[in-house]
Amino acid sequence: MPSESDLHRSIYERTRDLPRRFPHVLIGPGDDCAALRTDAQRPLLVTTDQLVEGRHFLTHPATAIDLIARKAIARSVSDIAAMGGTPSFALATGLLPPDWPHAEELCERLQFWSEYFHCPLVGGDIASYARDRASGAPQPLVLTTTVAGLSHPWRGPVTRSGARPGDLVYITGRVGGSLASGRHLTFPARVREAQALCDSLGPALHAMIDVSDGVGLDAARVAEASGVRIVIELDALPLHAGVESRLAAVREGEDYELLFVASADAPRPMHLLSADGGHTMVTLIGRVLELPESDERTPGPRCVGTSADIEGEIDLSEAGWEH
Amino acid sequence: MPSESDLHRSIYERTRDLPRRFPHVLIGPGDDCAALRTDAQRPLLVTTDQLVEGRHFLTHPATAIDLIARKAIARSVSDIAAMGGTPSFALATGLLPPDWPHAEELCERLQFWSEYFHCPLVGGDIASYARDRASGAPQPLVLTTTVAGLSHPWRGPVTRSGARPGDLVYITGRVGGSLASGRHLTFPARVREAQALCDSLGPALHAMIDVSDGVGLDAARVAEASGVRIVIELDALPLHAGVESRLAAVREGEDYELLFVASADAPRPMHLLSADGGHTMVTLIGRVLELPESDERTPGPRCVGTSADIEGEIDLSEAGWEH
Repeated sequence: MPSESDLHRSIYERTRDLPRRFPHVLIGPGDDCAALRTDAQRPLLVTTDQLVEGRHFLTHPATAIDLIARKAIARSVSDIAAMGGTPSFALATGLLPPDWPHAEELCERLQFWSEYFHCPLVGGDIASYARDRASGAPQPLVLTTTVAGLSHPWRGPVTRSGARPGDLVYITGRVGGSLASGRHLTFPARVREAQALCDSLGPALHAMIDVSDGVGLDAARVAEASGVRIVIELDALPLHAGVESRLAAVREGEDYELLFVASADAPRPMHLLSADGGHTMVTLIGRVLELPESDERTPGPRCVGTSADIEGEIDLSEAGWEH
Repeated sequence: MPSESDLHRSIYERTRDLPRRFPHVLIGPGDDCAALRTDAQRPLLVTTDQLVEGRHFLTHPATAIDLIARKAIARSVSDIAAMGGTPSFALATGLLPPDWPHAEELCERLQFWSEYFHCPLVGGDIASYARDRASGAPQPLVLTTTVAGLSHPWRGPVTRSGARPGDLVYITGRVGGSLASGRHLTFPARVREAQALCDSLGPALHAMIDVSDGVGLDAARVAEASGVRIVIELDALPLHAGVESRLAAVREGEDYELLFVASADAPRPMHLLSADGGHTMVTLIGRVLELPESDERTPGPRCVGTSADIEGEIDLSEAGWEH
């Protein structure tokens, strides 16, 4: 394992030209702080997340360092997309197992993926566990990433709380089987699609969230924040090839698609330009209803599912993938 | 231990009025991202840091949760001060030992201290270790904090790289004995003092760093970034009461005082207004020299110490507290 100073040296070496390549980066890694140029007209969006070995990914060599680094950045970028924002810069910290041989590779891949997603890494910190603990159980790799972005220039931040009765609920792409297929490590972040939605729907785009914990649980979060009830038509859910159970698909999570709510009067989006120049399909999967008078049988805001195969409704509010 | 949902509920409850109390906070915790109003005229400063149990602090109950939370925030605030900035907002993540009973208290104290230092917590993430690892060694509490601030309105970010031959080197407050005295948990962050230096010295304030890894190592970082040689007059170092060894004081670190370099022509600062309304003393401790022609005996940029008690110079560049 290279020393901390060696790691720092190669990080500074690789990021010396950041201000040239990303002109909003005034000062990159290597000082007490990084310094960034911001845009006062576009609120800054910030999100932070942890990726814990054994919890959010399996250990190398089962999962390559490259994919772990990608997921660490992409997950936060997906949060920026879910607010309709554009990624701007990132910070990352790593807590490394004792004598971990992949530190240099991890730093390099974090830098690569942060630049790939247009949010260059401008700061970070590397630590390892205290040595006297090394005798016990293996200590997991922990990555923490913070990503900042700029809101859409005129739509502003798209929150979870704007859904209104009568609105329609859509989802980008397909869901299901993310863990089994490995897609939870390779998913695209829907930044371009979110921009297109803000551009075309503007204020008619009422609410948005990325589906990281399952369609049901995440739609329930929108319902909760908006004080409404959301009904998902399970039969309409677009599934990935090979996914058989709609209920499993809705409960699994790790899809990182955008679930969004728009006014029923707005033009219905069908396809959105994606980052790779292709198109991402959009599917109408549900609707927003007024909150019924609360009683013991129908408790407050929530998300329910209906299907031709089942009688009545299934409560999807608690069914997600809660870490 | 309360469930993650319960923790989130009480966090959202406590932060609901953030936008009223801190008007630059547009959206606080609870959505995909927080949203902040920035000032395009003042570059945004960002820094991130980890605090690892057993590495950066000892375990509760030896160290109260309150002090751990304070240190996690104050350390990053000190980095903002070292660039001459004003703290603006913070994010924090916690990786908690299995069944850790202090999660609620930790969240509350992180919020308290972030607001105390004028950088309210606007986002975060709580995770715990995967259960199947719980059988082994105890797993340490890990806190990661990201703090953002605004640069001084007209001095701009004060980097480490502006020291020039002929400049003088100063330090705020006193150093030494930080670990033994517990000051490493209760140090003030010199935000107000840094503002006053930017206000009064302006462009004559050439470089600044906070002394977290020892006067010697941190001065050497300034020397390295600036391409100069720094000589510290060890006998001039202002020591805390009870600290006997100047060499230990210069090597220990965790002081979080500001070491700064100013033009010799500028007025010599003596006292600076501190956050508590008192005054922080400033001491002239060294000077900046031109880099000698590099040969084997006098390698490149570095920091050396001189004293009446020793002959010649001591190289202080490698002597710090490197984690």
